[in-house]
Amino acid sequence: MSLAPIASFDELSVGQRFDFGTLEMTRDEILDFGRRFDPQPFHVDEAAAAEGPFGGLIASGLHTLSAAFATMIRTGVLAKVSLGGAGMEIAWPAPVRPGDVLHVTGVVEELTPSRSKPDRGVAKLRFTAQRVADGAKVLDVLGTVFLKR
Amino acid sequence: MSLAPIASFDELSVGQRFDFGTLEMTRDEILDFGRRFDPQPFHVDEAAAAEGPFGGLIASGLHTLSAAFATMIRTGVLAKVSLGGAGMEIAWPAPVRPGDVLHVTGVVEELTPSRSKPDRGVAKLRFTAQRVADGAKVLDVLGTVFLKR
Repeated sequence: MSLAPIASFDELSVGQRFDFGTLEMTRDEILDFGRRFDPQPFHVDEAAAAEGPFGGLIASGLHTLSAAFATMIRTGVLAKVSLGGAGMEIAWPAPVRPGDVLHVTGVVEELTPSRSKPDRGVAKLRFTAQRVADGAKVLDVLGTVFLKR
Repeated sequence: MSLAPIASFDELSVGQRFDFGTLEMTRDEILDFGRRFDPQPFHVDEAAAAEGPFGGLIASGLHTLSAAFATMIRTGVLAKVSLGGAGMEIAWPAPVRPGDVLHVTGVVEELTPSRSKPDRGVAKLRFTAQRVADGAKVLDVLGTVFLKR
């Protein structure tokens, strides 16, 4: 989905919420990401995964993170102000399986104008992904990003 | 590079260090990852990137994270014991540019046997990537992983 791009860090407010829409984690994409970046049996080998700790194939947590982040970026809401990210704190509270549809939302948790660089601010933005089928939270990220003022 | 796989959580010790080898962040891979997961101008558009905040194309932090993680997984050191990850704290202290060669190392920071599940333990493993050319740290991750005992 598409959102109106904000024009400045100063348009944000703490507590502000965003709906970034949904994405589907397909089997092919799970296998492809796993082969490239996380080649553990439960991400890349269906037969081994069935015998493994999750009883089937699951997405790499890095894939869930990247796919949810992409869903946020593609809305365009930060396109005019993003100056990149400094860090993230990530939790993966539940596994993601092929075909899961995830709903990605965000909330502004902290806003700090930069002291050294008056043209920017530091925003702490939490974004989360919940499985639509059962509401389970599968990803929780607190990201620190630099935004233009 | 390849490392001897550990057979149990109990083989690890706090302070233990690992050399996971190096990887190269190529221009094509930076552009490909950016298009899929982080389509911001400074990750996907060379001309726009040259005019942007980093004065040129840089890798998505999620790409640097995923590539460094892949380098660790491909050594095989955790292949017999990995039960997946619970979370990460990530910092990206400096940008990564096309052609950068990164050296990935790790250190065991904390080991906690699970109380509820005697067949596993929780390890906090820090892995970092440094640019070989100048020694700059470009990625710092504290990951929490479940490992078989």
